[in-house]
Amino acid sequence: MVVQRSFSSLAAFGAALLLAARGEARADEGMWTFDAPPIDRIAAATGARLDAAWLDAARASAVRLTNGCSGGIVSGQGLVMTNAHCVADCVQTLSGGGEDAYLTDARDREERCAGLQAEALLTITDVTDQVRASVQGKDGEAYVRAREGALALAELAACGQDRTLRCQAVSFFRGGQYKVYKYRRYNDVRLVFAPEAAVAAFGGDPDNFNFPRFAFDVAFLRLYVDEAPAATPVFLPWRSTPPAEGEASFVVGNPGSTERQLTVAQLETQRDLVQPLAQAQRLELRGRLLQFRADDPDRARGAAQALAWVENGVKIGRGRMALLNDRAFMAGKRAEEDALKARVAADPALAATAGVAWDRIADAQDAARDLYPAYRQLENGPGGSDLFYDARLLVRAALERDKPDAERLPEYGDARLPRIERRLLDAPPRDLALERIYLEHWLLKTREALGVDDPRVKALLGGDSPENLARALAETRLVDPAFRAELWAGGRAAVEASDDPLVAFVLRIDGMARAARAAYEAKVSGPVDAAAEAIAGARLALLGDQIYPDATFTLRLSYGRVAGWRERGRAVEPFTTFAGFYARASGAPPFVAPPRWLEARKALAPDTPFDFVTTNDIVGGNSGSPVLDRRGRVMGAIFDGNSHAIGGAYGYDATANRAVALTTAAIGEALSKVYGRAGLADELMGR
Amino acid sequence: MVVQRSFSSLAAFGAALLLAARGEARADEGMWTFDAPPIDRIAAATGARLDAAWLDAARASAVRLTNGCSGGIVSGQGLVMTNAHCVADCVQTLSGGGEDAYLTDARDREERCAGLQAEALLTITDVTDQVRASVQGKDGEAYVRAREGALALAELAACGQDRTLRCQAVSFFRGGQYKVYKYRRYNDVRLVFAPEAAVAAFGGDPDNFNFPRFAFDVAFLRLYVDEAPAATPVFLPWRSTPPAEGEASFVVGNPGSTERQLTVAQLETQRDLVQPLAQAQRLELRGRLLQFRADDPDRARGAAQALAWVENGVKIGRGRMALLNDRAFMAGKRAEEDALKARVAADPALAATAGVAWDRIADAQDAARDLYPAYRQLENGPGGSDLFYDARLLVRAALERDKPDAERLPEYGDARLPRIERRLLDAPPRDLALERIYLEHWLLKTREALGVDDPRVKALLGGDSPENLARALAETRLVDPAFRAELWAGGRAAVEASDDPLVAFVLRIDGMARAARAAYEAKVSGPVDAAAEAIAGARLALLGDQIYPDATFTLRLSYGRVAGWRERGRAVEPFTTFAGFYARASGAPPFVAPPRWLEARKALAPDTPFDFVTTNDIVGGNSGSPVLDRRGRVMGAIFDGNSHAIGGAYGYDATANRAVALTTAAIGEALSKVYGRAGLADELMGR
Repeated sequence: MVVQRSFSSLAAFGAALLLAARGEARADEGMWTFDAPPIDRIAAATGARLDAAWLDAARASAVRLTNGCSGGIVSGQGLVMTNAHCVADCVQTLSGGGEDAYLTDARDREERCAGLQAEALLTITDVTDQVRASVQGKDGEAYVRAREGALALAELAACGQDRTLRCQAVSFFRGGQYKVYKYRRYNDVRLVFAPEAAVAAFGGDPDNFNFPRFAFDVAFLRLYVDEAPAATPVFLPWRSTPPAEGEASFVVGNPGSTERQLTVAQLETQRDLVQPLAQAQRLELRGRLLQFRADDPDRARGAAQALAWVENGVKIGRGRMALLNDRAFMAGKRAEEDALKARVAADPALAATAGVAWDRIADAQDAARDLYPAYRQLENGPGGSDLFYDARLLVRAALERDKPDAERLPEYGDARLPRIERRLLDAPPRDLALERIYLEHWLLKTREALGVDDPRVKALLGGDSPENLARALAETRLVDPAFRAELWAGGRAAVEASDDPLVAFVLRIDGMARAARAAYEAKVSGPVDAAAEAIAGARLALLGDQIYPDATFTLRLSYGRVAGWRERGRAVEPFTTFAGFYARASGAPPFVAPPRWLEARKALAPDTPFDFVTTNDIVGGNSGSPVLDRRGRVMGAIFDGNSHAIGGAYGYDATANRAVALTTAAIGEALSKVYGRAGLADELMGR
Repeated sequence: MVVQRSFSSLAAFGAALLLAARGEARADEGMWTFDAPPIDRIAAATGARLDAAWLDAARASAVRLTNGCSGGIVSGQGLVMTNAHCVADCVQTLSGGGEDAYLTDARDREERCAGLQAEALLTITDVTDQVRASVQGKDGEAYVRAREGALALAELAACGQDRTLRCQAVSFFRGGQYKVYKYRRYNDVRLVFAPEAAVAAFGGDPDNFNFPRFAFDVAFLRLYVDEAPAATPVFLPWRSTPPAEGEASFVVGNPGSTERQLTVAQLETQRDLVQPLAQAQRLELRGRLLQFRADDPDRARGAAQALAWVENGVKIGRGRMALLNDRAFMAGKRAEEDALKARVAADPALAATAGVAWDRIADAQDAARDLYPAYRQLENGPGGSDLFYDARLLVRAALERDKPDAERLPEYGDARLPRIERRLLDAPPRDLALERIYLEHWLLKTREALGVDDPRVKALLGGDSPENLARALAETRLVDPAFRAELWAGGRAAVEASDDPLVAFVLRIDGMARAARAAYEAKVSGPVDAAAEAIAGARLALLGDQIYPDATFTLRLSYGRVAGWRERGRAVEPFTTFAGFYARASGAPPFVAPPRWLEARKALAPDTPFDFVTTNDIVGGNSGSPVLDRRGRVMGAIFDGNSHAIGGAYGYDATANRAVALTTAAIGEALSKVYGRAGLADELMGR
């Protein structure tokens, strides 16, 4: 799930090197922005010339969920299709530990998902020039602060204080462009339908990032405004007929993050430092969560989602490292970089702005080796621990709000505070037993990464052992929303006076965390960002509309087609069927068909296409993205990538990278025949 | 603990490349056999010319423990010094979960360590010619089987059925030489003294493989014969004065395994396949054991030792991978290989036998990529699970004993059966909760490594989930020694009729495991061993006595000196003191001084050298090795290596690799003043 892609076989690679050396996007590659859709390129590849109406409807119907997923509006009454794994937390909260298929049909039982918001893109505005002006002549930490300040101002200028809107300033092409994305914001998002976890995540970790696949990973939400379903006159028409092999497919969604424009020196840092450190920690955390679950069946349900995310991360980490350690892949990246360097060197104007940029970035990698571990451990904090981040937000917001806007940490500017407040006051419940695991794991790994004799580690632990300290921190009262609200309202005085163990701890280590961040910004991210901006400028000048920006969890358009691929000389068909699902359902977890599916077996047409694959270029964040046909009808929901697509943060190869989706045909069948949700099916089909 | 070494900084490396290119051992490098001690080399390096008396006494006083450690005889009454971490299992069993310092003083309370044996080397006999003759003209699996058969015969010829002896045929120089090591065997080994775990493993995982260090990692055992202490007229004299900086140091012990003679192609397989797979599994298992311990304080003690071994393995794995990913290190290995290849090519006779050997090994690496994961998972089985291995031994011995000796799996030849019987009938208690973790982990990782759709995985799981299957297998009755004895006696009929879940499971999957092994032997280890033997022959012909064989858990001599090293431009002193120990003992685990040590603080001379480092070249298996001075007196006990020494399976660098030892001066002080063990101290000091 949450899809990541990668280059695949070495054989396929050789052929792609020539295009790579030119630095242009290859066949079916690309996550294109809606203000620069590659119409001609799409027409040449798919035969479909997308018009303004198609693009406007797709944009207006696409939603971004604030939990990192995508979705599509599929009725005039605010109905949104997304993945079941995108709403698992909400299902768990609302179903209260009991029945895990959220099967309510009556409109008045659609209940709110705490903390979840949906955002639909309205406009895109270029603010590159004003950001450029603000950073002129600055470098290091000052550069970073000036840029962040300018972006915050641009957001405020575009949205003002309108709480039905959200404005977000985004860097594209690693600083080559800055744009403000303005969204219609929906703060009230309710759960309409989610299937049983067993069928949503059928095949579990073993099948994740694999295909053939048999997961019913879909859920429906509804946008509400003023306690009533939102009117959404523009929506995606539902297609009940299955996709056909070879037909054009378009994915509209929010790929989260790619690093395809990193320099070779940066990729080497990823390979030698960043990814190994993260992966070692993830693997150990995975073991902890597996054991936590095994030791107590009552915990199984609460731990399952936490474990699923970590296991997903493990697969992504493995895929990324495999790609970074692939000599052919790195040779391709080197060839691409050398070609761009040569073109820059041949152009006096570009050479003046970007000529030394690669060396600057390489120099900063030496600093990264020294500074990254402390930055990661102290400033990023414990992965998974929502309560630590709640405490961090409370502490920092309290300290920063006392300062003039321009002197604050950029993420605590006035324009950003409402979002922080909402996160703190509108949070879903937290599981203290899991929080304690995350905290203990983080303390142990911080000691390991920095060394037991590092003064920061000594200060962090304050003479205690990681185990004891984590136990004490997990006594925090931050699980109580009222307590969070009180601290938020009380500001600096309340935070500084608090005897809550976690709040006091975060306050105590805050200076150390800020110092690690400041050092990293001064010596690594500041210099790198400035140099990357120069390279991006050169790339844009030389390659113009042949390139797309790295993913930034903003709305993108991907084109492709429904197609299998060849695996070790054998063809992998693009579709699975209901029949295949029942054949795989051995009854041993994670291959369990829920009772409803067993009962409905005879009613379902066995040959109905269930899951399918396309060549669309997608990554994590695209989960829940609608798959559209050339007429703009929705024919599937993205929920994963195949194994070749895992390392796709760094590249794409159309011969083997595949997006994995669920057909709307199967969704319609199952809603009617497995779940008896005729009303919902009627709404989808416009009946 | 269990010491592993590695190359260190890149800077140090350049200088070493020239020597490396000649393929000779560098300063202080080497684990030399007692039948070819490099007397002149040692004299040149240390100024000490070791004579036959010195060498004979050292050899006769050295013991090898069957749990993978070393030790030294230090009195005429069979007293053996080793590390506390080498007897942790025994301490736990004998102390029955109570007081964990095993402080008995009265001779009649010295209790037996179940399953532990000690072996003292008597003679070394070269059997290379007869092994060569037996494998003549064979290759692949037939080569492996013929060789193993010849080795088993050589053992039987040397020791007969004398149960006070053990003979072991060993390959040196990867097949360049075969020798039979004949040992005096002690089957009755009793615990005399072991300190509290808190001080034996002071600093725990954070301090493991680090220095400065403050661990009191020593224990004493006694060899018994016929219920009385063994008479050991040859023993190591005890030195009460501490080592001096710069003085010569000699380590006599049994380094377990190194791979310094692997070809570059094999090192790449280690780097890309073997080590990453093992490390990922270890990290996850570490997380499981950490959580298992955290979830229930009652388990803490039982899990601590299991966790310590896994964490030790994690550090070793990390060190190995760091070295294999070090471009300078690999360049050195390549230069060394190229130089040897050139010399082989220039010599027609060597070219004829070894010219194609490197290519043969490289070709086998392609097969390894396909075959290694199944071989590792199915034939090697679940790491840590003693009961699985018990079941495997019972099942295979039962099946093999029905065949003529020559047709059996070599490790089940008549000469090997007594050792198997002893393991099965004389085993320490097993912890079923830990066994279940190992089994579940192994089943999950096997499914992950081979894939959920692999027919072998389906057969392994038999339609069940790994979790459920592990739960069922952990219901085994093999924890009961009487049950093991019954199955051993009952042979094939008893094993095939058994309804014990683990025995039945191992029998069910045995064919599959054998097939994975046979395929690996036919395509990988067989061809590799034959080619390695040819290379070893060429190395011996060209370099003769300038080289030493890779470690094989046989007795070796290392020479060096007491010396610190420079770390990031700063000198690390070679000694720590009692004062440093107390300063580090914050009271937060793992930095806890036990009550006895706190009470004795004033009685101990604060400047007494505690732990120290030497340049000796040692690895895992050397734990417990005596450190001798030039007069043959014991002045320390090896228990670890420094961080640079971790990856030492592949190489050694005298500028930074250090062995970590405990001074006999500190041992004597503490025995008297902390533990009140005057009798033991008197025995050591010959009073």
